[in-house]
Amino acid sequence: MSSSGPQAGSKVAFAPILVADIGGTNARFALITDYCSSSNAFAIDHQHTFPSCEFKSFEDAVDAYLSQVNAISITRACLAVAGPVKGEEVTLTNLGWQFNVNQLKARFGFANLQVINDFAAFAYAAPYLNERDNICVKQGIAQAHANIAVFGPGTGFGAACLVRSQGQQAVMSCEAGHISLAPVTELDRQLHNVLREDLQHVSVENVFAGPGIARLYRAMAKVHGKQVEDIDAAQIAALAENKQCMIADRTLNHFCDWLGSVAGDIALSFGALGGVFIGGGILPRMQQRLLNSRFNERFIAKGVMSQYNSQIPVTLVCQEHIPFIGAAACIHQGYQSVSQMGSPTGSPTGQGD
Amino acid sequence: MSSSGPQAGSKVAFAPILVADIGGTNARFALITDYCSSSNAFAIDHQHTFPSCEFKSFEDAVDAYLSQVNAISITRACLAVAGPVKGEEVTLTNLGWQFNVNQLKARFGFANLQVINDFAAFAYAAPYLNERDNICVKQGIAQAHANIAVFGPGTGFGAACLVRSQGQQAVMSCEAGHISLAPVTELDRQLHNVLREDLQHVSVENVFAGPGIARLYRAMAKVHGKQVEDIDAAQIAALAENKQCMIADRTLNHFCDWLGSVAGDIALSFGALGGVFIGGGILPRMQQRLLNSRFNERFIAKGVMSQYNSQIPVTLVCQEHIPFIGAAACIHQGYQSVSQMGSPTGSPTGQGD
Repeated sequence: MSSSGPQAGSKVAFAPILVADIGGTNARFALITDYCSSSNAFAIDHQHTFPSCEFKSFEDAVDAYLSQVNAISITRACLAVAGPVKGEEVTLTNLGWQFNVNQLKARFGFANLQVINDFAAFAYAAPYLNERDNICVKQGIAQAHANIAVFGPGTGFGAACLVRSQGQQAVMSCEAGHISLAPVTELDRQLHNVLREDLQHVSVENVFAGPGIARLYRAMAKVHGKQVEDIDAAQIAALAENKQCMIADRTLNHFCDWLGSVAGDIALSFGALGGVFIGGGILPRMQQRLLNSRFNERFIAKGVMSQYNSQIPVTLVCQEHIPFIGAAACIHQGYQSVSQMGSPTGSPTGQGD
Repeated sequence: MSSSGPQAGSKVAFAPILVADIGGTNARFALITDYCSSSNAFAIDHQHTFPSCEFKSFEDAVDAYLSQVNAISITRACLAVAGPVKGEEVTLTNLGWQFNVNQLKARFGFANLQVINDFAAFAYAAPYLNERDNICVKQGIAQAHANIAVFGPGTGFGAACLVRSQGQQAVMSCEAGHISLAPVTELDRQLHNVLREDLQHVSVENVFAGPGIARLYRAMAKVHGKQVEDIDAAQIAALAENKQCMIADRTLNHFCDWLGSVAGDIALSFGALGGVFIGGGILPRMQQRLLNSRFNERFIAKGVMSQYNSQIPVTLVCQEHIPFIGAAACIHQGYQSVSQMGSPTGSPTGQGD
């Protein structure tokens, strides 16, 4: 990657950005105070992790953090939250936390406060990821300044897109995990037929998420005429790893195979010539299975668009601190895009430069 | 719709924007010189249409137009072309025209020149459409400053999204017509099984486009155990309108029904709480059939996301000059987004304000 900043290779210091990664278990905070163009990385300082359950409200958690970094005055903040963000009112259902963005701004004296969901943060982070920390699933050539798709199976199936065109950029948050799941192969169709016995609507997330693995396992057993116990994804993974259960092994292999078709559709739907990045909690734990699977073959098998998808690189993201990086990028790029208006992108360096 | 410009209700004049709509048959040109905030409309002046085949190159067509509007100096232009736009080199295969964006800028002295595809233009145009000229397919409440999805079956199946978030906006061009088609109902599955006999990959566009109607007609006949002749979409439409062929009638009804599921997936994939707009050459000619179909029912039938899709309005766009409006908006909004940075959107009025 090349750098395009005015001081290539050097650190650009700026007023600190408060970043937070708010999940059901932990509330993580950090300060971002500079971006280094030679490493294309933000410096993440003053990290603190608090158990979310220690606080009655989000404001209390921010107070606890700010008391740790007392000397530093902060006017810009971006919070990545594991849950949907709709307008000014943010509700974190798991924690019973609720806040209004404008009231939070006033309370802490933030001039700029953004609240984004965790997959939006992933999309903002994508141009700043470090190749060495992540795993190449499919080789390809990322087009500079083109759209980047991110998705990941975890508790649910999240997805988002960093859209870049006509010198503008914006992150598209979406509900792509809830679209109707398309069967492609004969085995897909057999599994789909079993899945729809129990589901009014068979969505991508019904299969490509933790609970979906258990559902796919039961469907796989039925297709093979086998009886299986009602076990969860972790138990299925253990059975598969120990070669104790052919159905578990086939389930996880087919999970990776079919995900290739789903990922190929995401690449097409988002016009992701800038690359596809996979996150979520499930796949980093089954890297080798993913790499040995038919993921790439099925990613490309899109008729007249096979050539289009062939060129797109797919990366499995294992790097830490993605929500911090994305939150920093959200603020930093919004700031930059004013000064860089008219250039192909507001991002300091495009993926694949 | 309310207006939010500094001179609400008044015309805002600006330096003329040259807009063009370049198709295989016609090259259309116009000048946009003002935006009226009370009507939320651009004035389209000096329209000229030339048969594309009259010119050996795109430059010749621009020369012909500029000779008609000699007195006006033009420094900004946006061209909407029916075909993919990749980087600086633009090729219009049907016409044998090819040009380089930077060379075109230099040749005509344009300070700003954008080349966008026709569905990107449709997405840029969406916030400026006139409710009275278009048809409400599904009622709903468009969220202000949220993403807007556009798509349309025609010669192919085009789609794009106007993405608006964190005070930024950008248009996502994509290949969503080429994703794998998901069967949802039992009849979908039967048709899908027939379609895959002839197709390596059954995509959305394989059904939801002109040639797709003929394909769906043959599949519908096979599912019903009937023999039919190999006729095209226009012939099928004529048979259906005259009630001469039950298979033709069912084909077009099912086209509208199944399209509801596809449109619902597009709304989810693009997080289109700002609304869905349908264009393309096919549906404006079968409005009544679309309105009588199960489109809305299937648009909403998305399991846990049914409530999400319920709120999204769907509009069939019959209004003229969409490429001109979109081309004007592309230039006008890009300019505005610098001055309005930090506001929820760079668009003068958000859809659903």
